[in-house]
Amino acid sequence: VTWTLGEIAERFDGRLVGPAEQVVRRPVPADAQDPGGIAFCENRRYLAKATGVGALLLPGHLASETVPYVQVADPRAAFSRLLAGTGRPLPLAPGIHPTAVVGEGAEIDTSASVGAYAVVERGAVLGPRVRVHPFCYVGEGCTVGADSVLHPHAVLCQDVHVGQRCVVHPGAVLGVDGFGFAWEAGGWRKMPHVGDVRIGDDVDVCALAGVQRATCGSTVVGPGVKVGDLTLVGHNARIGAHALIAPMSGVGGSSVLGERVVMGAQSVVTDHVTVADDVRLAARTAALRGISRPGAYSGLPTAAPLERQQRVRALLPRLGELFERVRRLEKLLEAR
Amino acid sequence: VTWTLGEIAERFDGRLVGPAEQVVRRPVPADAQDPGGIAFCENRRYLAKATGVGALLLPGHLASETVPYVQVADPRAAFSRLLAGTGRPLPLAPGIHPTAVVGEGAEIDTSASVGAYAVVERGAVLGPRVRVHPFCYVGEGCTVGADSVLHPHAVLCQDVHVGQRCVVHPGAVLGVDGFGFAWEAGGWRKMPHVGDVRIGDDVDVCALAGVQRATCGSTVVGPGVKVGDLTLVGHNARIGAHALIAPMSGVGGSSVLGERVVMGAQSVVTDHVTVADDVRLAARTAALRGISRPGAYSGLPTAAPLERQQRVRALLPRLGELFERVRRLEKLLEAR
Amino acid sequence: VTWTLGEIAERFDGRLVGPAEQVVRRPVPADAQDPGGIAFCENRRYLAKATGVGALLLPGHLASETVPYVQVADPRAAFSRLLAGTGRPLPLAPGIHPTAVVGEGAEIDTSASVGAYAVVERGAVLGPRVRVHPFCYVGEGCTVGADSVLHPHAVLCQDVHVGQRCVVHPGAVLGVDGFGFAWEAGGWRKMPHVGDVRIGDDVDVCALAGVQRATCGSTVVGPGVKVGDLTLVGHNARIGAHALIAPMSGVGGSSVLGERVVMGAQSVVTDHVTVADDVRLAARTAALRGISRPGAYSGLPTAAPLERQQRVRALLPRLGELFERVRRLEKLLEAR
Repeated sequence: VTWTLGEIAERFDGRLVGPAEQVVRRPVPADAQDPGGIAFCENRRYLAKATGVGALLLPGHLASETVPYVQVADPRAAFSRLLAGTGRPLPLAPGIHPTAVVGEGAEIDTSASVGAYAVVERGAVLGPRVRVHPFCYVGEGCTVGADSVLHPHAVLCQDVHVGQRCVVHPGAVLGVDGFGFAWEAGGWRKMPHVGDVRIGDDVDVCALAGVQRATCGSTVVGPGVKVGDLTLVGHNARIGAHALIAPMSGVGGSSVLGERVVMGAQSVVTDHVTVADDVRLAARTAALRGISRPGAYSGLPTAAPLERQQRVRALLPRLGELFERVRRLEKLLEAR
Repeated sequence: VTWTLGEIAERFDGRLVGPAEQVVRRPVPADAQDPGGIAFCENRRYLAKATGVGALLLPGHLASETVPYVQVADPRAAFSRLLAGTGRPLPLAPGIHPTAVVGEGAEIDTSASVGAYAVVERGAVLGPRVRVHPFCYVGEGCTVGADSVLHPHAVLCQDVHVGQRCVVHPGAVLGVDGFGFAWEAGGWRKMPHVGDVRIGDDVDVCALAGVQRATCGSTVVGPGVKVGDLTLVGHNARIGAHALIAPMSGVGGSSVLGERVVMGAQSVVTDHVTVADDVRLAARTAALRGISRPGAYSGLPTAAPLERQQRVRALLPRLGELFERVRRLEKLLEAR
Repeated sequence: VTWTLGEIAERFDGRLVGPAEQVVRRPVPADAQDPGGIAFCENRRYLAKATGVGALLLPGHLASETVPYVQVADPRAAFSRLLAGTGRPLPLAPGIHPTAVVGEGAEIDTSASVGAYAVVERGAVLGPRVRVHPFCYVGEGCTVGADSVLHPHAVLCQDVHVGQRCVVHPGAVLGVDGFGFAWEAGGWRKMPHVGDVRIGDDVDVCALAGVQRATCGSTVVGPGVKVGDLTLVGHNARIGAHALIAPMSGVGGSSVLGERVVMGAQSVVTDHVTVADDVRLAARTAALRGISRPGAYSGLPTAAPLERQQRVRALLPRLGELFERVRRLEKLLEAR
């Protein structure tokens, strides 16, 4: 694809400062050295690096002195649309590949595609235009809604219900047994997991993420939720609509996340914890108890030079002693 | 399946308060709205939510005013047995699927099942009633004991020895190279990993977990151990019997965990660390040094409102200064 | 293989204390009970445990009183070379397995091997002596350099360029979509990811690790880098040559790691953060901001007995109050 700057200005209802007939051929990062590329900037920090690209998408309050630009209402959104025009889906031939193994009674819509070496077990249902890539396992009793995509190596174990327009990324496993064990007679007795998984519409479950099936009942991932890479959603968890869970995070068993909750990378909500709507956890934060008010929350993970941190580590256990010493001083002075 | 409350009371030697002929059809969560369901409660918090189910399993000290119930010695254990009666294994036809690739000299017991698109390499041994699901890789020199199950997409690389009645969950990889590199001549020289992995009986290795093979010798996972999802067990680690390692945790290379050690979610024991029997690490705790006494240990991960946490973060590096200032005040007062 | 101690001393230019004709048959851990084994020790702690092996590799400043030994310049390096002589690669027949599915226009060098149930999509290129194991997916537009190995269940999605002598370990997924979403009209709009992944020579991407493709442009992993198991490299990240990223760590989107950066286990560098050459992050450290000076950095994760830690947790939020109380005392004393 190629676009002229004039076309871009018109498409996004923008204001062009530069030659309308100039051609750009691809979206690029702001710091690229690529005269055929167009980038976007939302702040001065990135604008300062944007000297080697052919053109820029900018908000109304920014201007470049060296590079032609188009001011638009939402540069990121406009850039996203240019990106969408340049990507290509993973290849997948229409219909069912001859090497795919399809179980008895599986219902596969005639418009769905099933790739090489995919296994669709008995009783599974694939809706219109569903795309199942190589090495996917779609287990017994699973359903996949219209226009959803299972990337290579995605696994739906059993009784996993995926909504419409969802994407299950490579290596993600849905419907795996919950981590539930009880101590009994000198060993861990496994809690059987017989519940299901219900995934709403427009959900992404990213690469190598896991969603455990419920002990009984359902593990629920609401519509519009994004589950990051290498993230785990525990059994019987309920995640509200449009929550965003950044990679490497964990949602504990039976926990409840409100709508639009945002979890930063490597954060965790432990078991049986309820988090209110619109709570935002910073990266690496652990919610060990419930959070009932919306707002931003954080832990104490920040990196500091090792030597300084070691001193703090040594003094922290003596914090109680310090409080007592100050109290004693206060009493002494009061007494005089 | 269906049960009458009378049958349930008799089976678990319980005391029924309610109609013996009432029928329940499935185990459900305590807060379900399901008159055909039976749930269990261990405390008043859950009992308060249990108003919509058909019946309850309760301990002797709890009673419901609205829902028929059966008091039993261990409600969780009884519930677990009801669950076990309702689950169904992943489908797998007896024998070796025609698409499975079996290497020369592999020994597969006649009662074992090998699914579609499984690969069993030369010299591998599968014991009685072993179930190998689609897309599993059972590498050279691996052995799998009687009644063990490899879920879809489980990988045993090489020289991995799995005991009896084990479950390797989807996407788990056992016997992968250890992360061992030494700096040499301006780069990282890889330490070859030629050791093996020895997994005891009754072990679960959950979804997307990794167990590294030993540099030489063995990485050992004791009998009855549960390794959580997305957890890594490092090369040459030794994990004692009946340890429970919650999801997203890490056991460092050459570390030694005692028996019945419990690691909470996202916890870590770093390399070359020894942890005593019966130590319990809370979620998100890091054991950077050895722990020689049993008991509960924790880190400092707790979520707090961002603003308050930022203030603490700013003051923490000045903790040493504060100790000095208090010491000075104490001396001043002493001197007067 | 077997070696005499005389052969070993000669091969590593070492000094033998013991019988030259004694035979050892395998490298073993220092604490093994194995008279046919040879181990290495770098310090007295391990030497003290090394009483049951047949022989030892030691540095010049160590000597054993009970076990024959060879003093060499670098015992670990020598041991590594013995290990290399005993390992065996995963089995893989030459050529393309009849069950492999190869897309139109894929270029596979005649010396490359492709295993059972591997998929190589159209337009992919495999160089000389490349080894692709069962269940690997090599996507459209991917290239794999000479002598690189893709272990079973490795996934290269699309436009992933792997250098020479690289190893992609089991379950690793490269080129997956970045985790990029923007809030728009009441939901998360997905940022399309159309960029590529560029992996230098001599890189290891360990088991179950993920590398996201760039939004546009490239995600870059420099030569000699080691990416640990269950680690995530975010979209558009750039990792300098010879960085070592221990398992379960995360490198955020658009972050830049300098050369030879070492990240300990479960550490994280969040999005858009720049870390200088030769920075070392301790295990479990979070770099939430850029680090411009080389050196060692740490967080505050250490395990402590739960009761003590709970007291510190309760007092930490009152740290500001304590500073104020001390300031007040100082003023009072000054005033007198």
